[in-house]
Amino acid sequence: MNNAFKIGPVLHIIGLLLTTLGAAMLLPAIADAVYGNPDWKVFIDSSVLTGFVGITMILTSRGSEIDLNVRQAFLLTTASWIAVVTFAALPFIISPFHMSTTDAYFEAMSGLTTTGSTVITGLDSGPPGILLWRALLQWLGGIGIIVMAIALLPALRVGGMQLFKMESSETSDKAMPRIAKMAMAILIVYVALTATCGVALFLAGMGGFEAMVHAMTTLSTGGFSTSDASIAHFANPAVEWIIVVFMVAGSIPFILYVQTLKGHSSALTGNSQVRTFAWFLVGVVLLTTFWVWTVDHYPLPEAFRYATFSVVSVVTTTGFATTDYTAWGGFAVAIFLFLTVMGGCTGSTSGGIKIFRFEILGKALRAHLWRLVYPNGVRAMMYGGRGLHEDVFGAVLLFVGAFAMTTAVSAVTLAWIGLDPITSISAAATAMANVGPGLGDVIGPTGNFASLPDSAKWVLVVTMLLGRLEIFSVLVLVTPTFWRG
Amino acid sequence: MNNAFKIGPVLHIIGLLLTTLGAAMLLPAIADAVYGNPDWKVFIDSSVLTGFVGITMILTSRGSEIDLNVRQAFLLTTASWIAVVTFAALPFIISPFHMSTTDAYFEAMSGLTTTGSTVITGLDSGPPGILLWRALLQWLGGIGIIVMAIALLPALRVGGMQLFKMESSETSDKAMPRIAKMAMAILIVYVALTATCGVALFLAGMGGFEAMVHAMTTLSTGGFSTSDASIAHFANPAVEWIIVVFMVAGSIPFILYVQTLKGHSSALTGNSQVRTFAWFLVGVVLLTTFWVWTVDHYPLPEAFRYATFSVVSVVTTTGFATTDYTAWGGFAVAIFLFLTVMGGCTGSTSGGIKIFRFEILGKALRAHLWRLVYPNGVRAMMYGGRGLHEDVFGAVLLFVGAFAMTTAVSAVTLAWIGLDPITSISAAATAMANVGPGLGDVIGPTGNFASLPDSAKWVLVVTMLLGRLEIFSVLVLVTPTFWRG
Repeated sequence: MNNAFKIGPVLHIIGLLLTTLGAAMLLPAIADAVYGNPDWKVFIDSSVLTGFVGITMILTSRGSEIDLNVRQAFLLTTASWIAVVTFAALPFIISPFHMSTTDAYFEAMSGLTTTGSTVITGLDSGPPGILLWRALLQWLGGIGIIVMAIALLPALRVGGMQLFKMESSETSDKAMPRIAKMAMAILIVYVALTATCGVALFLAGMGGFEAMVHAMTTLSTGGFSTSDASIAHFANPAVEWIIVVFMVAGSIPFILYVQTLKGHSSALTGNSQVRTFAWFLVGVVLLTTFWVWTVDHYPLPEAFRYATFSVVSVVTTTGFATTDYTAWGGFAVAIFLFLTVMGGCTGSTSGGIKIFRFEILGKALRAHLWRLVYPNGVRAMMYGGRGLHEDVFGAVLLFVGAFAMTTAVSAVTLAWIGLDPITSISAAATAMANVGPGLGDVIGPTGNFASLPDSAKWVLVVTMLLGRLEIFSVLVLVTPTFWRG
Repeated sequence: MNNAFKIGPVLHIIGLLLTTLGAAMLLPAIADAVYGNPDWKVFIDSSVLTGFVGITMILTSRGSEIDLNVRQAFLLTTASWIAVVTFAALPFIISPFHMSTTDAYFEAMSGLTTTGSTVITGLDSGPPGILLWRALLQWLGGIGIIVMAIALLPALRVGGMQLFKMESSETSDKAMPRIAKMAMAILIVYVALTATCGVALFLAGMGGFEAMVHAMTTLSTGGFSTSDASIAHFANPAVEWIIVVFMVAGSIPFILYVQTLKGHSSALTGNSQVRTFAWFLVGVVLLTTFWVWTVDHYPLPEAFRYATFSVVSVVTTTGFATTDYTAWGGFAVAIFLFLTVMGGCTGSTSGGIKIFRFEILGKALRAHLWRLVYPNGVRAMMYGGRGLHEDVFGAVLLFVGAFAMTTAVSAVTLAWIGLDPITSISAAATAMANVGPGLGDVIGPTGNFASLPDSAKWVLVVTMLLGRLEIFSVLVLVTPTFWRG
């Protein structure tokens, strides 16, 4: 790879993405048309505009090489998300909702980053087009991040992601076709799981449209709903358990599904990240169940049901709610604040710090304590059957540090704007980890982000983007080094 | 150094420390006797018992080599603090206060770790012996941690402290006399600064006894006071500014004072950690002043005065209060939560994560971003004029990670015990960073730790010890590796 800096290939790919987005806008147009809602024009207008810009970008950048160098890949990562979010906000602005630019941009960013915080109230009577559009954004954002996590981030070595290079000896020539093939296989799995979830929800009693929307926002661990009350609206345990299963399914590395289908029967069960994730979920669910049962005096089955849903919803970074878990008392609030930043497995749709980083942190901690006692001893760190390079370990630790610092800066900025401490801290954390609900009366699981001041919404927009793109992909663009030479 | 594990030398040094502690107990006995308080017997009894145990330990371990190996040094670090705290708690138990074992142990740990959280109310009418004893504990704990930070921790390479080895080529034979000489020089500076602070406070209008007590708890960045209202009780701006100056003085590496006195005139001003610390303090003070002036509508001079005192008190991990800064609103609460864990410079009496670790985190972050853009580039990281070894950088990052995780575990445990979220989180943070006050109504700057349940107090006792001994020194003792072979 040479390091020359031509913008052509970047514009070309963004053009392709915008054209796809424009095409996707036709789906809510159809939905509105079917339900006889005049809103369909909104989506046609948006689609034409987005498609026009996209196609223009493709045409003007024709003939560019597509093989990206490191700097182009970084620029593409951030620029493509900003471009797509900008155009994805159009329908919100010109719809009869008449959302402000801030609100529209917030909703679009929250959608595409699969965060799920919303500024819209009155979803229950919302037009089907807009409801479908929100779900589509999360669904597209979900597959987008999975593909990025296998195709871009490992090569860019962001936050220790080089650990997940598909082949340690890969070269860019050979890698592209393999990655493209894998991305296609993952897309098929993603569609299949979404369809299965949708059918299951329909059979459990949801309406067809609702089942489709929730399937999309469940698999993408996004958490947008068709009701202001989120999943509590349905008051249906079967629906809840189905969603629990598919939220977990959305938080597992999708590459493992493909490997399982190819006959590696232990791909899932033998994966270190998946096993740690499973044990962690079981542990926290049992602990929370015990608390809700003994302290809040829920009957045991109810305690188990609500605790499971809430814990899984937050740890998978989905953010659906069936109850106000912040009313469970001190322990629940404290643990949910920490669960918010945990995250699921990497290579999935979920956000946050992610399980593999905690695994590596744990390994590094053990190795460090060992070396304190044996200063001259040598012990190799292993992860997933391979030796763990110092670089990965450093990048992971630095990521965790940067995650904490970014969250702190965001929280302090929100507090400066005037939000109360719990709202500030939990809003920063929930945006950073792309979860959705925060804590407290305003933005808690039964709350809404609508009432925040515009400046706070923009802080959260930036925070969501930083979290979704693993911080460093964005930060690298603001270093002078990046633009030099 | 051989790695054989003989307990003799460890017992010998603990014996010396206990004998010193027993001798120190005579001072409050004298104070009580002078003021005609019958409490003096309490301290004589405690002194005899402590001295007896100490001398017995010295005698039974006579003839042991004093040259410690790594494992002995680790055991000594934690065991000596636990032993000293245990005996330091005696006067609280047998005094007319009749404190429970839990409360006595909490107060002694809070004192010796220079934390400054208290479970005692009614200080204003407390017997002079007990008030002096609390101040002495902080003062002794302060010099104890400074000596540990130059004599033990760098050799043990805890949390990146190898950065502060006095000579990169030192061997244990040559190092000991040099370190002993340096420790003596530092002790002289410590005494001189304390005396200066005491005289200044006296001249500013404090009583002689109060001036002495506050000088000791200021230089040690401990924060125990003679009044339940802390420094607010004196309502004296001169006193406040003197304390501000000496809190900062107590947070600067004491080795730099010695170097300055030896004629290295730029030792203080040229030190990277000191400069960063100064700029950071100025920045946060100005920001907080602006907030208190514009949002809380304090007159500007008052805003500056209260903001300076509160920020300096928390960042230096002292914990004195002149006002309830948690009433200043959202921004103040959020920023004070983050300030709580910052800490001053290493090699001083202050706790927390400490400035040099943030400096190294920042350097590592810049280097990391650079290497993301130039994957094959090589760039050395420098700190304080020396190359920064990968080991130090890893240890620092791991320390920050371990600090965050320990605080989180402590906070969740406190929440499980039943404390509200803000109390849980801020109590864990304030104990971990050895600051003193937390946030919220219960343990805030105008509150007190007395009402917490016993189990919560024990959690905080462990947290204070972990924080003071830089986590790893304690954690290493709970690994099976440590006790093997």
